[in-house]
Amino acid sequence: MTDDQESGEPVTGPRPVTRLWTEADLGAGLTLGLDHARAHFLRSVLRLERGAPVALFNGRDGEWLARIEGLGKGWCSLAVEAQRRPQAGAPDLWLAFAPIKRARLDFLVEKATELGCAALQPMMTRHTAVSRVNLERLQANAREAAEQCERLDLPEVRPAADFGKLIDAWPRDRKLLVCAESGAARPIAETLISLRREGPDSAAGPWAIMTGPEGGFARSELDALNDLSFPIKVGLGPRVLRADTAALAAIACWQAILGDGRSRPPLRDGD
Amino acid sequence: MTDDQESGEPVTGPRPVTRLWTEADLGAGLTLGLDHARAHFLRSVLRLERGAPVALFNGRDGEWLARIEGLGKGWCSLAVEAQRRPQAGAPDLWLAFAPIKRARLDFLVEKATELGCAALQPMMTRHTAVSRVNLERLQANAREAAEQCERLDLPEVRPAADFGKLIDAWPRDRKLLVCAESGAARPIAETLISLRREGPDSAAGPWAIMTGPEGGFARSELDALNDLSFPIKVGLGPRVLRADTAALAAIACWQAILGDGRSRPPLRDGD
Repeated sequence: MTDDQESGEPVTGPRPVTRLWTEADLGAGLTLGLDHARAHFLRSVLRLERGAPVALFNGRDGEWLARIEGLGKGWCSLAVEAQRRPQAGAPDLWLAFAPIKRARLDFLVEKATELGCAALQPMMTRHTAVSRVNLERLQANAREAAEQCERLDLPEVRPAADFGKLIDAWPRDRKLLVCAESGAARPIAETLISLRREGPDSAAGPWAIMTGPEGGFARSELDALNDLSFPIKVGLGPRVLRADTAALAAIACWQAILGDGRSRPPLRDGD
Repeated sequence: MTDDQESGEPVTGPRPVTRLWTEADLGAGLTLGLDHARAHFLRSVLRLERGAPVALFNGRDGEWLARIEGLGKGWCSLAVEAQRRPQAGAPDLWLAFAPIKRARLDFLVEKATELGCAALQPMMTRHTAVSRVNLERLQANAREAAEQCERLDLPEVRPAADFGKLIDAWPRDRKLLVCAESGAARPIAETLISLRREGPDSAAGPWAIMTGPEGGFARSELDALNDLSFPIKVGLGPRVLRADTAALAAIACWQAILGDGRSRPPLRDGD
């Protein structure tokens, strides 16, 4: 095969258009105005012009193709044209995690979003290294990651909760997988595969994955979890993982075995 | 349970000691001298003193407990005492990946190390965004991550290879899993579980996971992979993952299903 220009193009199906999250309703013939920051982004950073396509999603109406109707310094108007993809439900998977330092937290939020988490639940434990969570920053990172990874909704960023209160008030219909750094725990793949074999009562419905802080759960916290019947403790191998690594490894395994890992990216038919 | 000081302690078994990689042989009665940078790290950053324990590993002799025999400005002498853990083999899993921007690459190397990769193979493709790889930086990040995650060896950081040359010279006994962003591919969990069921010929032995660059493989590269009989193309779900996310998700699934995911961290018996 000659290495001509055509074979050099990345094969990703139709060239990916800029995707933007909006809270506005989406439907044929509607017009959207973008805020100053986003207008600036499209015009001065991406250098888009009138007529350029933009994909919009709002978590309700699926993904719609729109076109830039007009733009100028600090404003941009989009004409919504046609639905590109219907709204699809993502698995109802929460990540409950102890906040970590900023750069790592940014990556964790990005990757948890790419890997399809429905909600991010910051959880303050005894050994949580970070005392405050900037929810707006988490939301901004989640939005950017959702736009990039072509998902049709945003993960919900829930207000930080105290660990004790969180598990005291735990909704019992939400199954809970706890990544256990020490002590008895069944390997994650074996656990999830067994649950899947047992059937919907064991495997379907809302789920959450919980990881502890870098310093580990406190004794009292482990005891509290052990006193409950519903947490399922799983192991992630013989190496001691950082909190963010554990979270991402667990989510990846969960999606692959119980989640939507069997689906393909909808708009990528190339190859 | 009262929240007294004891129940507040992180439960991680014996308090984790500082772990250091060394190239030197390890055995009872031997003495090791640390270089200036590491001596400074132990003395001025960690503020360790004479008599403090340090764990050492070299990828050959297992993990040994040593004690600081003496230290001063820019020097440190360790007395090797007793073996803590015998050398254990980690799964022979390579990660072949197109280099990405520095901060992301640092994270990728750290997490690939935590997740037990035996070797990291940078791979230059047509759409690789980064033209040069700093192998020393990769090695330093891998070493730090190996020390932190309590593994007994370092991943080998292989010199960057041209994609075409890499697959032309591919050792046919090393099974190859390719993360496929587009086109036909079987879901990763289903693939790996099937292979495991088929038995050692399908599942055991050396493996590699390959992910493409952010821009995707070029047409010619996909054709080259399709022309070969041995690459196994797998899908990672309906969202389009960044290259580093795809790599980590695939490694996590592989370790959980085919690798050492069934083992527990050896020194963590607490709880």
